[in-house]
Amino acid sequence: MPARDLQGLRLAVLAPISWPVPPPGYGPWEQVAFDIADGMRRRGLDVTLFAPGDSTFEGTLASVVPVGVNEDPALNGDVFGALHTGELFARAGDFDLIHNNFDWKPMTYALGSHAPPLVTTIHGFSSPQILAAYYACARRSFFCSISDADRDPGLDYLATTYNGIDPQLFTFNDRAGEYLVFLGRFHPEKGAHLAIDVARRAGVRLKMAAIPQDEAYFRELIEPHIDGDRVQFLGEVRREARNELLSNALALVHMTTRPERFGLTMIEAMACGTPVLGARMGSIPEIVVDGRTGFLCDGVEDAAAKVARLAALDRRDCRARVEAEFTVERMIDRYLGAYEIALERGLPGPPSEEHERMRRHDWWDRPMAYTDIPPKPASLLFE
Amino acid sequence: MPARDLQGLRLAVLAPISWPVPPPGYGPWEQVAFDIADGMRRRGLDVTLFAPGDSTFEGTLASVVPVGVNEDPALNGDVFGALHTGELFARAGDFDLIHNNFDWKPMTYALGSHAPPLVTTIHGFSSPQILAAYYACARRSFFCSISDADRDPGLDYLATTYNGIDPQLFTFNDRAGEYLVFLGRFHPEKGAHLAIDVARRAGVRLKMAAIPQDEAYFRELIEPHIDGDRVQFLGEVRREARNELLSNALALVHMTTRPERFGLTMIEAMACGTPVLGARMGSIPEIVVDGRTGFLCDGVEDAAAKVARLAALDRRDCRARVEAEFTVERMIDRYLGAYEIALERGLPGPPSEEHERMRRHDWWDRPMAYTDIPPKPASLLFE
Repeated sequence: MPARDLQGLRLAVLAPISWPVPPPGYGPWEQVAFDIADGMRRRGLDVTLFAPGDSTFEGTLASVVPVGVNEDPALNGDVFGALHTGELFARAGDFDLIHNNFDWKPMTYALGSHAPPLVTTIHGFSSPQILAAYYACARRSFFCSISDADRDPGLDYLATTYNGIDPQLFTFNDRAGEYLVFLGRFHPEKGAHLAIDVARRAGVRLKMAAIPQDEAYFRELIEPHIDGDRVQFLGEVRREARNELLSNALALVHMTTRPERFGLTMIEAMACGTPVLGARMGSIPEIVVDGRTGFLCDGVEDAAAKVARLAALDRRDCRARVEAEFTVERMIDRYLGAYEIALERGLPGPPSEEHERMRRHDWWDRPMAYTDIPPKPASLLFE
Repeated sequence: MPARDLQGLRLAVLAPISWPVPPPGYGPWEQVAFDIADGMRRRGLDVTLFAPGDSTFEGTLASVVPVGVNEDPALNGDVFGALHTGELFARAGDFDLIHNNFDWKPMTYALGSHAPPLVTTIHGFSSPQILAAYYACARRSFFCSISDADRDPGLDYLATTYNGIDPQLFTFNDRAGEYLVFLGRFHPEKGAHLAIDVARRAGVRLKMAAIPQDEAYFRELIEPHIDGDRVQFLGEVRREARNELLSNALALVHMTTRPERFGLTMIEAMACGTPVLGARMGSIPEIVVDGRTGFLCDGVEDAAAKVARLAALDRRDCRARVEAEFTVERMIDRYLGAYEIALERGLPGPPSEEHERMRRHDWWDRPMAYTDIPPKPASLLFE
């Protein structure tokens, strides 16, 4: 429990700028940034949210970017991202703590700033080379991870601050449905093609609601299987329809091919009482209690075999797990704990010997969930 | 003349990171950054040059980027550019003045920094939208332009600090040659296709030494005319060969289609005694004294007609003009004057009413030499 009372703490939350906050549709980072800002406001902190001008926030909104840059594709995200960040640091003296949810670049601004303690949530490592920025800025920023699995071995972390949802927004259904569901983005790493395979082997229907992020992948590996019956494609499904889709399902299939960092769709499904059939990798073993709120699977065959056992799970366990661990309020508790430590320490300490060693060790040789692994520059030398 | 003695002034020069400093081949911004740093060092300032690790500098070199990012294309320029900038501002307390030659982004770092006065040389505006950054940062950075023509009407400038060369590196030839020369980059804006047209109409040979930056343009509008005789293509030509090529020419043809910002090749040619046949736009009228060190031309026909008058020009006037106005030492003088003002003022004052008005006026409606003019975002509102 926090020893220090954070009531009235002047907190700046830096949100991403792709979408307004909260996002009207897709925009997981924007959603989390909003939930943090709004949650902290409800706990009595004095919150200023740096977000696009068409955002909605009951605290203080500070906007440099007129709208989400994905809403007006002609906006130069590089220019407005830099101003969004620069203006926050220009006002750093107005705050007691800065919580950065806008990826790695803002940390490089903090290096030369007299800003108060900075907490950065690492929502994901985009590539190995990005570690150069994290290591260089580790003397200035504290870090939170969104799962234990998504931690870099060269960094120190204040806490694992799992993302949270408001369970009230999801309708609990204690009766198992008859179809599997795939939700999210069509990208190979999310394993939509594996979900199709699992459903076919198990002889159950699959409903897919996702945006075709990787269009070639969608065209080649997904579309040919869509028949409107055994494999249904519903497009992007929002709020009420999403709720209903999840609520009435037998299970969410989440057979990722790359370690998942957190996996918001899993807790959304579980909040509806719907268990998860997930790959045994990344964050999934932290979210899903194997044999209770779903099954951890070693490949498609294993997953297909476990479909028959899904209906026997007690769906109340799924809901209860979300309520205990993955609500916005629990997330806020965890961040408050992290803030306490950051405020107490002020600046991060020097890296441990082990962290030092890992920072010198080949960044391309990591168990991390990089989004992309481009070639290693010959000019970067590792031990 | 400087009233304050700048001996011992702790100056940080931030160079671009595409190439080492000085650049072994192409790299005009890197060359200017080096000339500034080295010139200031020779004048007794205590200079720290922030540049890639394979740079050569007799003062203090501070390197975050291992090599020029164009030398190791796998290097992530975004990551290393941010660290290159961030580390300078992290050390801002070590300096009395920062001179930024790394485009606009470092200014956004200065917004939240207690760094000393910052002088930014605007080597070029890449697009209208970039003005958002300049206007937002004008309260924190002083500006220098590289010609009177390349000034934005919404900004205040300390000085026009023309780029300079060392005339000793160029061999003066008092005899007019018999061929025209085109030097630089194959990009429509540099007018290589117009140079071909001028040479053909005038019935003289054209030698072209340039890198094919815009390959489609080169293939379609340049390559078909190369015959190894009337139109010769020499590829990229460095140092000695470049000197010889310029020295023995009748004139440099510089028929730009977009306002030139400065135009280093013009002063290189003039240092060799070679006059310039240039378009009457952008900086060219500031560099070329019409009828003495070349001719200002209104289109291809006008330029072709003036070719016959080139041999009658006194080539000593060309050399003398460079020695008087466009040497590294003159550039250093001009920057020292700008530094004086920046140190005296500390921070820029508020914008004038006219500057304010221009900042609110449509940025797409400017006489500026933008590199690129992408569509105007609907979310940006102008008066």
